[in-house]
Amino acid sequence: MKTISPELSSILPLFYIAWSDALLGPSEIALIEAKLLDIAWLSDEDKELVSAWSNPQNPPNDELMTIWSTAIRTVAAQFSEQEKLSLSRLGIEMAKSQAGEDNLYWLNENVLTALQELEKAININNLSNHTELFSEVQRNALILSKLKETSFDPKKLQDILDDGYGEIRKKVFQLLQDPLFNHKTLREKTSYREQVIVWLQLLADQGFGSLHYPDSSGGKNDLGAFAMVFETLGYHDLSLTVKFGVQFGLFGGAVLNLGTEYHHNKYLKYIGNLSLPGCFAMTETGHGSNVRNLETTASYDNVTDEIIIHSPTPDSQKDYIGNAAAHGRMAVVFAQLIVDNINHGVHAVLVPIRDGNGKTMPGVEIIDCDYKLGLNGIDNGRVRFNRVQVPRTNLLNRYGNIDENGKYSSPIEKEGRRFFTMLGTLVGGRVCVPRAGLSAAKTALTIAIRYGLKRRQFGEEGQPEILLLDYPSHQRRLMPLLAKAYAFDFALTYLTKQYSENIDRDLREVESLAAALKSLATWFSSEAIQQCREACGGRGYLSEMRFADLKADTDIFSTFEGDNTVLLQLVAKSVLSDFQKELGEGGIFGFAEFLAERFLSAAREKNPWAIRNTNESHLLSTDFHLHAFRYRERDLTVSVAGRLRKHIGRGLAPQQAFMRCQNHLIVLAKAYGERVVMEQFAEVVDKCADVTLKPVLKRLCSLFALHTIEANASWYLEQDYMDGSKTKAIRNVVDKLCAQLRDEADGLVAAFGIPEDCLNVSI
Amino acid sequence: MKTISPELSSILPLFYIAWSDALLGPSEIALIEAKLLDIAWLSDEDKELVSAWSNPQNPPNDELMTIWSTAIRTVAAQFSEQEKLSLSRLGIEMAKSQAGEDNLYWLNENVLTALQELEKAININNLSNHTELFSEVQRNALILSKLKETSFDPKKLQDILDDGYGEIRKKVFQLLQDPLFNHKTLREKTSYREQVIVWLQLLADQGFGSLHYPDSSGGKNDLGAFAMVFETLGYHDLSLTVKFGVQFGLFGGAVLNLGTEYHHNKYLKYIGNLSLPGCFAMTETGHGSNVRNLETTASYDNVTDEIIIHSPTPDSQKDYIGNAAAHGRMAVVFAQLIVDNINHGVHAVLVPIRDGNGKTMPGVEIIDCDYKLGLNGIDNGRVRFNRVQVPRTNLLNRYGNIDENGKYSSPIEKEGRRFFTMLGTLVGGRVCVPRAGLSAAKTALTIAIRYGLKRRQFGEEGQPEILLLDYPSHQRRLMPLLAKAYAFDFALTYLTKQYSENIDRDLREVESLAAALKSLATWFSSEAIQQCREACGGRGYLSEMRFADLKADTDIFSTFEGDNTVLLQLVAKSVLSDFQKELGEGGIFGFAEFLAERFLSAAREKNPWAIRNTNESHLLSTDFHLHAFRYRERDLTVSVAGRLRKHIGRGLAPQQAFMRCQNHLIVLAKAYGERVVMEQFAEVVDKCADVTLKPVLKRLCSLFALHTIEANASWYLEQDYMDGSKTKAIRNVVDKLCAQLRDEADGLVAAFGIPEDCLNVSI
Repeated sequence: MKTISPELSSILPLFYIAWSDALLGPSEIALIEAKLLDIAWLSDEDKELVSAWSNPQNPPNDELMTIWSTAIRTVAAQFSEQEKLSLSRLGIEMAKSQAGEDNLYWLNENVLTALQELEKAININNLSNHTELFSEVQRNALILSKLKETSFDPKKLQDILDDGYGEIRKKVFQLLQDPLFNHKTLREKTSYREQVIVWLQLLADQGFGSLHYPDSSGGKNDLGAFAMVFETLGYHDLSLTVKFGVQFGLFGGAVLNLGTEYHHNKYLKYIGNLSLPGCFAMTETGHGSNVRNLETTASYDNVTDEIIIHSPTPDSQKDYIGNAAAHGRMAVVFAQLIVDNINHGVHAVLVPIRDGNGKTMPGVEIIDCDYKLGLNGIDNGRVRFNRVQVPRTNLLNRYGNIDENGKYSSPIEKEGRRFFTMLGTLVGGRVCVPRAGLSAAKTALTIAIRYGLKRRQFGEEGQPEILLLDYPSHQRRLMPLLAKAYAFDFALTYLTKQYSENIDRDLREVESLAAALKSLATWFSSEAIQQCREACGGRGYLSEMRFADLKADTDIFSTFEGDNTVLLQLVAKSVLSDFQKELGEGGIFGFAEFLAERFLSAAREKNPWAIRNTNESHLLSTDFHLHAFRYRERDLTVSVAGRLRKHIGRGLAPQQAFMRCQNHLIVLAKAYGERVVMEQFAEVVDKCADVTLKPVLKRLCSLFALHTIEANASWYLEQDYMDGSKTKAIRNVVDKLCAQLRDEADGLVAAFGIPEDCLNVSI
Repeated sequence: MKTISPELSSILPLFYIAWSDALLGPSEIALIEAKLLDIAWLSDEDKELVSAWSNPQNPPNDELMTIWSTAIRTVAAQFSEQEKLSLSRLGIEMAKSQAGEDNLYWLNENVLTALQELEKAININNLSNHTELFSEVQRNALILSKLKETSFDPKKLQDILDDGYGEIRKKVFQLLQDPLFNHKTLREKTSYREQVIVWLQLLADQGFGSLHYPDSSGGKNDLGAFAMVFETLGYHDLSLTVKFGVQFGLFGGAVLNLGTEYHHNKYLKYIGNLSLPGCFAMTETGHGSNVRNLETTASYDNVTDEIIIHSPTPDSQKDYIGNAAAHGRMAVVFAQLIVDNINHGVHAVLVPIRDGNGKTMPGVEIIDCDYKLGLNGIDNGRVRFNRVQVPRTNLLNRYGNIDENGKYSSPIEKEGRRFFTMLGTLVGGRVCVPRAGLSAAKTALTIAIRYGLKRRQFGEEGQPEILLLDYPSHQRRLMPLLAKAYAFDFALTYLTKQYSENIDRDLREVESLAAALKSLATWFSSEAIQQCREACGGRGYLSEMRFADLKADTDIFSTFEGDNTVLLQLVAKSVLSDFQKELGEGGIFGFAEFLAERFLSAAREKNPWAIRNTNESHLLSTDFHLHAFRYRERDLTVSVAGRLRKHIGRGLAPQQAFMRCQNHLIVLAKAYGERVVMEQFAEVVDKCADVTLKPVLKRLCSLFALHTIEANASWYLEQDYMDGSKTKAIRNVVDKLCAQLRDEADGLVAAFGIPEDCLNVSI
């Protein structure tokens, strides 16, 4: 080995680790080099050497690396278990061993400090790279010390997640700690349903059910608080959560948003305190997604001044209706409103289905849906109406009224617009559902990550086995999910705010946002819970580990409140319609090829140098992330619009043209949703003023961004937005971020703030 | 519109449809052009025109396409509903309308035949492209006629899937039709477990449990038949299937493969007829994957000539043991065998755990694992041993014996090799488990596809709504899964044969094969069942649709019989070890960069022209598919080997080097498994002599191949194996194959041959 100076030896451990991690490519080295050259105690000759080694074209060869490795290990072996270990400290020891005492005049306090800063700057957090240098005993000591390390206070991070609703969340958790809420898996549906209705009453007694109703109806007019209650219940029991949503959100929400003062005064108070349990009877056996073509009729009879509710065909029975099989006493029934033989489209009518003693009303037939994949604490049922008569005033008449003279009128003349306006007011369900799904995913992640920090398997002879979470494959499995849980949390908080702020104004934009985020977030939750189950192996299969119920109960979230695939098509149409507005006259079907090209090249030109940029600081920059997400959405918009234009130009009906582009529309909608999530995450990072939180939030954000870009790598490559060296570099940065966040994982799940008794798992 | 000749008009509909589908790119047109130019009745001038239009650089412009579309529609409008519709027939009508009667001298029977052949050749099967030309009434007639069409006899295809084991399969289904097997979901574990043991006895009474045992033990020595019984039970009840596997496969298999004649004579008969129910007690709370480090001890006591079985720590209790909580009377216990204070590694010992009255034996403690995510018809338990004494002869002594003098001996000297040889003989579970998982996936696909062919949603005003399976998004969701179900079926049949043929020889290759296919197939099954559930919407969530149990019961398949992630790492190591042998002296850690380059460039050079080839006949060719799969596996092998060499060269211990490459190893193992599946599918297609089956099998194979390549598109792009135009073309061909196979879907699920009463779902 060519002798190197003691001064240079001091940085050897840092340099070695940086290079041994050089699968990432040369960008990291460039960063280090720049910093190293600033070091005061290095001679010019040393700096030249460092410069040579740092040439990405000509890195230290294997022989040299082996020699360094041996030298470093030899020095490291002199450390005892008790001594504080770090690469900086090791560097000092290297220098000492290299030089006689009189050759160390340059070595003072500042050197250690400088080395420590360097160590921090190059982010050597990957334990597996780091600990190889040390003896086994030291390694274990290091691992233990790392375990206790937290770079931030989870409570502070929790505050950011709570976004001002920490108090109500705490209140719900306090209530859930009451022994009456003790959780026990009830596998038999009748007893489970009875348990859930008892719990629901306890929630109603606290006023939780009417938080989003107006003051005049005993509420607080606080939709954000209502959504937080819903989210928090998701940590306890999802049947209760969904039942809560059905009663106070769907049933009560329909009365609130589709009814008028008469209905508010007459019903909301009793809905909120659960003395009037009710159903939201929209879906029919033959019509789930296609609500506009429901078959149930609501025919006005001038003679009796009543509305007759009827199910004309077997397919028109109301299906999967929550609260119907056991507890519901009234239902908001969606039906074609027929007045004077004219069909005015779908309207909602209040129909009593059981009397005060629980006896089914005449003309109403209710069939139990029996067991389901999950959510068996909810009494879903099928409801058929055989010419059931209700007073005219039971029509929820905000958007369509029948007056005393039997005349129909509506503030919205066009049937189509009326229909979509009515449906739009019910978007609250889509705002809430993904939040409860996310609670389930957070529970699963908390369990799986804690298990991964406790359970060991395989390892070197005579050593403690290796923690599951120290395996790169395990990190790859769980860390991106953890980052996404944060990403969706921020995005859903944003959605709730947008909904609250616009509920009395134009909801169209919020509808797209809700549809996109509901779809992406609920699919994410299912995927996350599944991965967490598998990450806990056989243990994860036992009911005691809770994945069984978490999986089963959330599975339907991708279907109810709008099937995800159907919702994404609506999202895409809305994105295209916004694009059309942007294009102005002529719209999508008028715009010419060169216009498309202009839109795209404008976006492309902003970053012409970026295609091959594998520099780590670029890959980790929020600007790059935002650009990549926005570019993708924009490019997909322009290209789908072009295809539609082409098809329609050739004489296809618009519906057929959309059918041809269906798979592209879904891809576009996902890109739209991902872009929104990315922007919201970036904003949270940007706003965060706490220096202990900002770095970890930034890392989570980068992991979310790069993992998503990686998943779409083939698209970016096809578009020449990136070349292969860049997508490879991204893959390596994702691995690295996973390893770095592994050390924060314990704190990151702690920040979800799930109380132990609610988590209810012993690991 | 420039007037075109009547002759040319005859091919206009075909030409129009081909071009309107031209999102695929010009390759398809090139094919058509070549065929068109052969047509006898076209003039040279017409041929020139066709040639001009067929120039991929200058396709018919939108204006021209619109004119054609209008002209074709006008003629089509003259057809009545009753008339037989086809593009060929439409061409004839176009020609007639274009010419006076006296201009049709060229029009004879041969023209129609030639057009029909053309129509067939260019594979216009995509209804959505096709039907746009016709009136609504005609369209519906066409759809109905398509529905009844089947290009093949499902029974014949079923024979290929059965691969000679149709008889035993039929026999099992016959037995399952017995009223005693009537299926009823039992949610309470005790009654469910009792139901399952009754069923198991009925199977044993038929001799199904001992099919794979030697004649001398009342068996038929037919592992293929045993595996087919296991697979077929997967259509009925998965708790029964797994219990069958535990008793006859795992417990009986351990006695068969690890025991000697003494044990075979004494036990196999009673295991096969279920008079001795038993357990396979390998997994411990602290050791699932890492079997070699199990903690349970089996210490030989020279004084009493007995073996003492002991659980020294809480983590060493046997966990999740099937048949333990209720029915097992004996257990094969895996433990560290200690003789004369020397640990000889893991061996298996027969330990009675209950007496004939079901009372737990002294020193044995059994705890019920209680409810699980699924498979609640199986009595999993935890078993602890407190110095339980059994006779020396209870050691299953094929690979390690203690003689009368208390001396240990083994035919395999090295502990490591002995351990892996013993474990290797138990690979049968990995052969069987994915087959039952696949049965569950086939059940799910049958239900979801039939539902998609019945359920309609949305559509044009006044028209019947559109069938779910006519939506491109629905086809994209289900058709690739259908193709994969076939792919895995053929691959698992191959695996079973390999296992049967090599069980008395070297199993090492089969072990890798089993590990890879078990992992890929069980993950596939989970994914398929999930997608099928979602594809049936709210209906799919009801237990009556069976997805609930299918999902829950198969979820653990990715964990038991070897965690998939762990198995894939073993697979990768075996692939690397084969590569090392191939390299000869020096092996992986000796081979130099230029060698790696040689391996890769040799593979690459075979197909230098293929990078940009978007010709459809190329994209659909088996040669291309095989090359892509093999290239990927080979390239990943070489690159992982290079990384390992680099890390080890720098002084990392091999284990740490493997740790660093863990994610790459998993990718390599998947590529290996996919390559095997592809090769087996290609061989089935190649061997198939039936002209009615071969085309549909080829399409399924192409869909499997291209869908898999599409999923790995970013890798192929990074490697410059393909450029972006090719990956885009592949995406379009996948869409097209999905649309084509949609018309065969009903027959393709019928060929799974699941009897209606076993399917047990009314759609």
